[in-house]
Amino acid sequence: MTKIALEDLNAAPRDAFVRFLGGIFEHSSWIAEAAAAKRPFATVAELFAAMRSAVHEADANTRFALVTGHPDLAGKAARAGKLSAESAEEQKGLGVGDFSEAEFARFQQLNHAYRERFGFLFIICVRRHTKDSVLRQFEKRLKNSRDEELATALKEIERIAALRLDALVEAPDRLPVYGHISTHVLDTHGGRPAEGVAVELVEIRDSGKPRLITQAVTNADGRTSEPMFSGQPIAIGTYELRFDIGAYFARLNLADPPFLTRVPVRFSVSAPEGRYHVPLVVTPWSYSTYRGS
Amino acid sequence: MTKIALEDLNAAPRDAFVRFLGGIFEHSSWIAEAAAAKRPFATVAELFAAMRSAVHEADANTRFALVTGHPDLAGKAARAGKLSAESAEEQKGLGVGDFSEAEFARFQQLNHAYRERFGFLFIICVRRHTKDSVLRQFEKRLKNSRDEELATALKEIERIAALRLDALVEAPDRLPVYGHISTHVLDTHGGRPAEGVAVELVEIRDSGKPRLITQAVTNADGRTSEPMFSGQPIAIGTYELRFDIGAYFARLNLADPPFLTRVPVRFSVSAPEGRYHVPLVVTPWSYSTYRGS
Amino acid sequence: MTKIALEDLNAAPRDAFVRFLGGIFEHSSWIAEAAAAKRPFATVAELFAAMRSAVHEADANTRFALVTGHPDLAGKAARAGKLSAESAEEQKGLGVGDFSEAEFARFQQLNHAYRERFGFLFIICVRRHTKDSVLRQFEKRLKNSRDEELATALKEIERIAALRLDALVEAPDRLPVYGHISTHVLDTHGGRPAEGVAVELVEIRDSGKPRLITQAVTNADGRTSEPMFSGQPIAIGTYELRFDIGAYFARLNLADPPFLTRVPVRFSVSAPEGRYHVPLVVTPWSYSTYRGS
Amino acid sequence: MTKIALEDLNAAPRDAFVRFLGGIFEHSSWIAEAAAAKRPFATVAELFAAMRSAVHEADANTRFALVTGHPDLAGKAARAGKLSAESAEEQKGLGVGDFSEAEFARFQQLNHAYRERFGFLFIICVRRHTKDSVLRQFEKRLKNSRDEELATALKEIERIAALRLDALVEAPDRLPVYGHISTHVLDTHGGRPAEGVAVELVEIRDSGKPRLITQAVTNADGRTSEPMFSGQPIAIGTYELRFDIGAYFARLNLADPPFLTRVPVRFSVSAPEGRYHVPLVVTPWSYSTYRGS
Repeated sequence: MTKIALEDLNAAPRDAFVRFLGGIFEHSSWIAEAAAAKRPFATVAELFAAMRSAVHEADANTRFALVTGHPDLAGKAARAGKLSAESAEEQKGLGVGDFSEAEFARFQQLNHAYRERFGFLFIICVRRHTKDSVLRQFEKRLKNSRDEELATALKEIERIAALRLDALVEAPDRLPVYGHISTHVLDTHGGRPAEGVAVELVEIRDSGKPRLITQAVTNADGRTSEPMFSGQPIAIGTYELRFDIGAYFARLNLADPPFLTRVPVRFSVSAPEGRYHVPLVVTPWSYSTYRGS
Repeated sequence: MTKIALEDLNAAPRDAFVRFLGGIFEHSSWIAEAAAAKRPFATVAELFAAMRSAVHEADANTRFALVTGHPDLAGKAARAGKLSAESAEEQKGLGVGDFSEAEFARFQQLNHAYRERFGFLFIICVRRHTKDSVLRQFEKRLKNSRDEELATALKEIERIAALRLDALVEAPDRLPVYGHISTHVLDTHGGRPAEGVAVELVEIRDSGKPRLITQAVTNADGRTSEPMFSGQPIAIGTYELRFDIGAYFARLNLADPPFLTRVPVRFSVSAPEGRYHVPLVVTPWSYSTYRGS
Repeated sequence: MTKIALEDLNAAPRDAFVRFLGGIFEHSSWIAEAAAAKRPFATVAELFAAMRSAVHEADANTRFALVTGHPDLAGKAARAGKLSAESAEEQKGLGVGDFSEAEFARFQQLNHAYRERFGFLFIICVRRHTKDSVLRQFEKRLKNSRDEELATALKEIERIAALRLDALVEAPDRLPVYGHISTHVLDTHGGRPAEGVAVELVEIRDSGKPRLITQAVTNADGRTSEPMFSGQPIAIGTYELRFDIGAYFARLNLADPPFLTRVPVRFSVSAPEGRYHVPLVVTPWSYSTYRGS
Repeated sequence: MTKIALEDLNAAPRDAFVRFLGGIFEHSSWIAEAAAAKRPFATVAELFAAMRSAVHEADANTRFALVTGHPDLAGKAARAGKLSAESAEEQKGLGVGDFSEAEFARFQQLNHAYRERFGFLFIICVRRHTKDSVLRQFEKRLKNSRDEELATALKEIERIAALRLDALVEAPDRLPVYGHISTHVLDTHGGRPAEGVAVELVEIRDSGKPRLITQAVTNADGRTSEPMFSGQPIAIGTYELRFDIGAYFARLNLADPPFLTRVPVRFSVSAPEGRYHVPLVVTPWSYSTYRGS
């Protein structure tokens, strides 16, 4: 996606500004209009704050309309390919395309129960979630009061908007919408960083096979040149870093036959915007790991 | 299986002795006959030594007949249910019953290649192996010379016999044919053994789902009341201890939301008669493990 | 010291019984008399319970007399060599003989302040303490009420008595008056117990040099053949296990020049009757330790 | 000491250049003269390379004169205060001022033995050494051949010169003459960096009390704002990082009474120009440490 420079937004005619940012909050160009009047913005954080203020200052009916403007999650529109481009892209991460009939039915039943109970659709910032955590949220939020759910829905709408805005605007800063998973492999058999260790990051799912997210190889400092995950929220869920320690020590002609081959380190992410640094301190016969910093 | 006391074997008429022990070495009651003459035995180790001596002192033709008396591995006899009771029981551990057509075909092809090359059947003490390690052995041994393979086959026959004898005879001692997997969970958040941690031992296979071997719960000393594995050889392969650490710290109202849920510790067993003590030293945010003693 | 068998105490004439046990509670043979009437005892724990009951059932004046029958701690009697044999032996562990003038003065001042405040002498089971922890107890207990201190004094007298009784009587059981410090060295560079590691246990003092308590060498299982400490209470204080790891790895021709030479592991003991198992899991470049079980 | 900018050296008249750098190699301004002719230098590394070339290209007699121009180590001149300013400053780090008579005698005896054997004085870059490691070097080098010792002396002279030059010249780069000791404290009880932990770095000496080098307190990232050691060579020897873990967990109201109070981590430095990153991963009941990166 082509990004727009913040300075261009600052300089753009009001109409163009609204056209660019009208979709940040779904079907609610009035929010972009309100922000247009507060230009110029030095940072994307200021721009987003102006949009949030517009939401907070709106009357209850207008805010309610914002909530009702979002589509079903994994609903008929998604199946029929009738979502807005942004919604389609966001729901894709959930793997809607791979849902079984039973899963679609489960989501439809929950959407239905939610709408019956609250009078509006279930809204969640799906890019912060896995299928498993969405289902848990569905069940948890169905127990809320209507007022709690309205507040929760607006909070989720803001999260969706922040992600869209961050992706769209080129600015000196970024919105704090991104998580980070990194690792570091220390070889305490040799007393040095472990170079050349193949590492995978996979998502572990309640049912179904693990999903490979990325793979990398450690460099001379025992780190990967890029973080294992960055630049987007980490979907709430369970992950595994898998270190090919057997091959590493085999190349050093150590530990044949090996005791450790592939070392799996499994951990849960509860903060999609969190930093998860998970080092491995390893010998052919032992290892330790921890949530580092 | 009913065991026979060593003292009863010592006191039995020669014919009865041979009847009891004639199947220890498949189709080779002459070995039991030779041992019968050396009675009495104080230990089963002495009894087994006498049987091994008979093999070692036999002439080459007799030893060769011993090698050719064993059935195909995962071959037509296994499929058709025409094995001796002992062989059937031993091959069962390999999961022959669950083999796919492709796997049967692979074993048949290897059996065939082996017989073509050496003029006798591939013999291996299957209770020391998983399907994956048998295949690796097949490929490795196909590269041996005929003399090496005859020696290897006799070595494997002795291993089979030792397991059969140990299972059959009640004696003050046991033959060293058994492996041992154990664990110990220390909670260094609380500074005490971790009690009530559910632990599973599973076998990890090159293809197909992990196979659950046993499950247990740690006691007040952080150990399981029985070892996770004992009393038989550990099939050469890859295993995983899985510790339900999330539930343990949740009961202590710690770490909500959790970082660690199920901690997998994966390791390889290369010595079926080895002791594998694999402790877990754990907090809600870290753990270490090592091959202990 | 010659021990007396519990069965002999059970069978002894009443006078002999009282003569044997009259010094268990200092200057208070009436406690032994009361216990004599409850014979026979199956265990030393039962015998001690009978003596404690006598104390608990005594009237306030008698109990007070028990408290006032004990000597000053590190007082003039100690200096002049005028203590009962038991008291002399017990105070010796504190190193009274090595006290500086300033330390004697400090103890005298505290003894004096205590006697002024409460009307009786400061009593403490010195074998459970180091000089440093006695001073801390002195300061802490000076803030108590008189009733609290009477109760504390009686509790300490019971502790003193339990140690004396356990040392005197040979029985099928022992009183729970002993602590335990042990270790275990695992070499995770080699994947095996570390054999031949010299280990020292020293007491660390607020001032003055560390005091060597014991030294040992690890066996093939990475343990010491005897615990580093056992058979008496561990004086409340700070200890250090010192592992000569440099020499161990040097013998294996590893890590030259070394990163680790002597590894000190320092820990505090607050429970004199506790079990302190402190393992070391070590490579030439790393180690971990923890309070184990 | 006031530094001189490299660009000023490049622009200076030849005489001034030689005056500034004439003492870099003791009593050997011919080396500065040779370097002057090769100006300008983009980096101090280039300047030093030019000076080293002059040494390497000099004839044997000239090089020998360089070796004989250095003073005794801890000799009469040092005692009598008759060293060049640079030599005095360098020998100070060794603690010559605190030497006992016996130590002076030992050094004099070694200096004498060395001079007798080789015909020139013992030269060593003392800033890379502790008293203990100098003595070990003395004994080791006394076993060398004369040619080996001439080469060693020149190597040490270059090390001395590199340190002097780096300290004198302000340049875009620095010479690789500095070591680095740093730490990082992770609290895996709480799952976060340990903030506010007091840390000391001390030098451990074969005899005599440990010498405090620096103290610091960890910040919110669990690190110290400055490295524990940097900006000069780490004298070859044994060091201890001491972490006041007891106070840290006491502030969190954890572990009362404490198991860990002051955690000592002792390690040896063999590379004065090395990076020694020694983290501590700690709970109230356990810790691990390793040579990190």
